[in-house]
Amino acid sequence: MTTEPAFIAALRAIASHPAARGLDDDCAVLDLGDEALVLTHDMMVEGVHYLSGQDAADVAWKLVATNMSDLAAKGAEPVGVLLGYMLGTEDARFLAGLREALDFYGAPLLGGDTVSGPGPRALGLTAVGRATCRPVPSRAGVHAGDGLWITGAVGGAMLGLEALRSGSGDSLAYRRPQALMAEGRKLAPLVTAMMDVSDGVLLDAQRMAQASGVTFDIASHAVPLACPENRRAEALRWGDDYQLLFTLPAGASTPVPATRIGAAAERGPAPLLVDGLALDGNDRLGYRHG
Amino acid sequence: MTTEPAFIAALRAIASHPAARGLDDDCAVLDLGDEALVLTHDMMVEGVHYLSGQDAADVAWKLVATNMSDLAAKGAEPVGVLLGYMLGTEDARFLAGLREALDFYGAPLLGGDTVSGPGPRALGLTAVGRATCRPVPSRAGVHAGDGLWITGAVGGAMLGLEALRSGSGDSLAYRRPQALMAEGRKLAPLVTAMMDVSDGVLLDAQRMAQASGVTFDIASHAVPLACPENRRAEALRWGDDYQLLFTLPAGASTPVPATRIGAAAERGPAPLLVDGLALDGNDRLGYRHG
Repeated sequence: MTTEPAFIAALRAIASHPAARGLDDDCAVLDLGDEALVLTHDMMVEGVHYLSGQDAADVAWKLVATNMSDLAAKGAEPVGVLLGYMLGTEDARFLAGLREALDFYGAPLLGGDTVSGPGPRALGLTAVGRATCRPVPSRAGVHAGDGLWITGAVGGAMLGLEALRSGSGDSLAYRRPQALMAEGRKLAPLVTAMMDVSDGVLLDAQRMAQASGVTFDIASHAVPLACPENRRAEALRWGDDYQLLFTLPAGASTPVPATRIGAAAERGPAPLLVDGLALDGNDRLGYRHG
Repeated sequence: MTTEPAFIAALRAIASHPAARGLDDDCAVLDLGDEALVLTHDMMVEGVHYLSGQDAADVAWKLVATNMSDLAAKGAEPVGVLLGYMLGTEDARFLAGLREALDFYGAPLLGGDTVSGPGPRALGLTAVGRATCRPVPSRAGVHAGDGLWITGAVGGAMLGLEALRSGSGDSLAYRRPQALMAEGRKLAPLVTAMMDVSDGVLLDAQRMAQASGVTFDIASHAVPLACPENRRAEALRWGDDYQLLFTLPAGASTPVPATRIGAAAERGPAPLLVDGLALDGNDRLGYRHG
């Protein structure tokens, strides 16, 4: 089986359009004269991105929220979505969750496709947003000296999934993530780079460092937790919390609640240091597909 | 299992945005001041929309072509695509076909998502186009008296699939459909309605009649065939040929090669007549999912 990074690298080789930031930057940005549209597409597969048997309303919510979070990281406001839907046995629940999520984000359903098929279900959503500031933030703008910030705590979705699996405890953070649309819009004009944390703070910070050609040093104990302290190492490698990770010039202050968790330096041997040390090469840092 | 029409009806109920033509009109149309963007999303599932074991390069080609055909029916020129891809065992072949198709249509890859998952693969593609004329044609503009036209022959993809399954004969029409981009752009300023034939001439004509509130009478023997005459009834109910079906005011002539196959009248008891007769209510008319 191909690994995702190898496939993405091959895809990137055939994507020469200036808007093709979507391959490694979550969103494509289309410049249209006075406006810029931001486009993102996320897929979710039953048993991989959500549990088999999970409430389809929560699945719909999460499908919308993950795409909205990509827009949030661009400071974009939702224009609408296109849904790729594989019919199943819980379609009414899916529709209920979809309606709730689209209402919440003010993102109208514009179109899409429905199919039937055997086996585990796959769902896709394309979200279209309108940039509220330009240039649209990317992962690639970090300068040495910038501070690295995060909007809030991680580890909540990890506990939420455990609660859902065990049938006891609060699973809301896993089932109903919230994309930080307002925070993204306030931050977009100020940040040097921004992305949402979907695969883990360490992995996503490393991706930002690589895209920007810098090295981040993260103070691991500065990262706010929504789980017990003894699970910090896991929480830094866990996705699904959808915080915004961003950089500001040294000395700049954030317009939204956020925590400074590190700083960028000139690119050294490793793109990511944690408490001053490079990580073991076998550390997967976060959630990777493939 | 929910039927597709029921699910689409429920989706339509939550889609109140004026651009939400995509639910029953293949494409959403976003008005952006001087420009209009046309957006479409199609999914393909292994074993449903293509054969298990089929060359992944052909699958990629078809995924692109079906979406481009939706743009063609709007007279739109491609801006780019976002890919939702489930990794498998033939990723290199998929990439080769994808590159070939995107080059052919001049549609750059803008972004997307890759996932891994068990079971049959599901693929999604979102195509973004720029309208070349406004208003953008829809299915809903037919007037009583208009002529109904088709750009070419049907039944070729049916024979192509049979050839592919049997391992002998020419399967190209099934494997490598071509979207009629240039024809769509020439027709768009002139037609009263237009759509591509993806699910069968009769079924798609009925959908156009219903969207427009008219009745079509189709002269079944006027429809050009790419298969033997004794398979005419099947060919009228077979999709995948991606011809354009359109209406022109009575007396107007077509700017591209096309055949007049019927006419629209005031809406009668049935939306579709074939050779003057309503069809049996059990006639499925074409390919329906669900």
